[in-house]
Amino acid sequence: MSVVALCGGIGGAKLALGLYHALPAADLTLIGNTGDDFTHLGFSISPDLDTVCYTLSGLADQVRGWGRGDESWNFMEGVRQLGGPDWFNLGDRDLALHALRSDALRRGESLTEITARIAGQMGITARLLPMSDDPVRTVIATPDGWLAFQEYFVRDRCAPKVVGVRYEGAEAALANPAALAALADPATEAIIICPSNPVLSIDPILSVPGIRAALAKATAPVVAVSPLIGGLAVKGPTAEIMREMGLGATAASVCAHYGDILNGFVLDEADAAEHGALPVATSVTRTLMTTLDDRIALARFTLEFARDLGKRP
Amino acid sequence: MSVVALCGGIGGAKLALGLYHALPAADLTLIGNTGDDFTHLGFSISPDLDTVCYTLSGLADQVRGWGRGDESWNFMEGVRQLGGPDWFNLGDRDLALHALRSDALRRGESLTEITARIAGQMGITARLLPMSDDPVRTVIATPDGWLAFQEYFVRDRCAPKVVGVRYEGAEAALANPAALAALADPATEAIIICPSNPVLSIDPILSVPGIRAALAKATAPVVAVSPLIGGLAVKGPTAEIMREMGLGATAASVCAHYGDILNGFVLDEADAAEHGALPVATSVTRTLMTTLDDRIALARFTLEFARDLGKRP
Repeated sequence: MSVVALCGGIGGAKLALGLYHALPAADLTLIGNTGDDFTHLGFSISPDLDTVCYTLSGLADQVRGWGRGDESWNFMEGVRQLGGPDWFNLGDRDLALHALRSDALRRGESLTEITARIAGQMGITARLLPMSDDPVRTVIATPDGWLAFQEYFVRDRCAPKVVGVRYEGAEAALANPAALAALADPATEAIIICPSNPVLSIDPILSVPGIRAALAKATAPVVAVSPLIGGLAVKGPTAEIMREMGLGATAASVCAHYGDILNGFVLDEADAAEHGALPVATSVTRTLMTTLDDRIALARFTLEFARDLGKRP
Repeated sequence: MSVVALCGGIGGAKLALGLYHALPAADLTLIGNTGDDFTHLGFSISPDLDTVCYTLSGLADQVRGWGRGDESWNFMEGVRQLGGPDWFNLGDRDLALHALRSDALRRGESLTEITARIAGQMGITARLLPMSDDPVRTVIATPDGWLAFQEYFVRDRCAPKVVGVRYEGAEAALANPAALAALADPATEAIIICPSNPVLSIDPILSVPGIRAALAKATAPVVAVSPLIGGLAVKGPTAEIMREMGLGATAASVCAHYGDILNGFVLDEADAAEHGALPVATSVTRTLMTTLDDRIALARFTLEFARDLGKRP
């Protein structure tokens, strides 16, 4: 079963890992968010692509949620010692990825090529595609002005109120041709929107010209998995942001936010009551992914649901 | 006693540390070789300046001879894992310096400004000046063609025969104005050429237009300390290179190589026999620097010798 999934970082990568286990690797194409990407200390950092790579390769830290396991922090200690900025933590092992990517980008390689090579070196056999090779930068409007995404997310620990979000560069960005082709491919049997933050992880992908239209025109059913359970996010500021932006913070509001690009919506048992009111086909299951088995089970459930929905006319 | 010293990496930094202890810090200006500098994985690396910084600050590894003590190598493990080049070792703590410098250079700061800030952060109170802010690159002619310095020195472990050396960019490089001023300063009482490799560490400095002339015109006596003891270098390829280039590998040949820029020459007891034949004032002592006390003793001996030589007419 040939599947395309859109995903952000930690939450989305959990389901991506489930899909990776549930499907033959060659059947899975992941379209990753690059709106969180930024340059820090001269390193080109792609947090969501990295989280997906580390998660699929088994290198991810299981407790911290980001970065690599078995990590050391001597680089950061050196940076502090020399009076450098220390608000963004870069592990010593993790830094290898950033250094190699930054170097390759400077030498003119595309993010798509670099990501494919890195994923390959990590032994990942699924296809991981950045949404675009052009820079798209998520910026956050707060009552005190605009913040770059990582300033909001890491430096200020999501404390500022979010009154708006902009995806800078999106209008001029060229969608990844391989991503567009995968979405349009008649062989694609399901398009999954992972349980990532809709505003911070999925909307940047949808903001790249051509991607929303490709979802609308795809013959594969588009199924989103709710990132909210009982109005709460498992991790991160999804609920707060959706509330602050006036979108509501229920599974139903996520479904409404995606609007007519969806054919199906998977929501948690805790939200079963919202079930009937939704304008698309829904399916209810346990969506909390604690173990690898949970991830695989939710992936299988979602794939099954998509298969039942069948091709669109 | 106001002193200017020219120095390269490990050997030169030993005497620089001795001078740093022997003099009030504000009286010492070090002019560092940047001919070894190179870009690797996107990092701007200045091995000789770094060795001097680590040595003077006490952060240097005491056994390895380069880089920082208490170092870890997880970045390199990550690089290998991702298929990146691993012939040049970069420690995790050391990497902080390279990342901060590279980032500052990209933002338009000069190497002189960056070096001063880094040295200051390390608590170094002597003045450390790169010979130039412009790139000068030592390249090595071998029977099989030209090699970049670090390819010869690190990657190929000094194995290729050296038939020539070129300092690329030197002709167009602007000498560090502060270095020229220090050399010309009537208050400067001694100019010391540290026991560095004459061809690989000192000649690149002398190749920058204006520096050799500044030495010739200085009123302070110019005193070199021989890097060779009994025809051998304490570490590194000095003797081999001088022999391969037909310069000879004795203390006398080092003295002859520097030629008329010298007013005085310090050589080791092992080479006392060469003493009389040299065309400049000489002074014989133990030059092997094993302990910190050795470094300070040689510094004091050299300063005393320079003081005895007195100002030039």
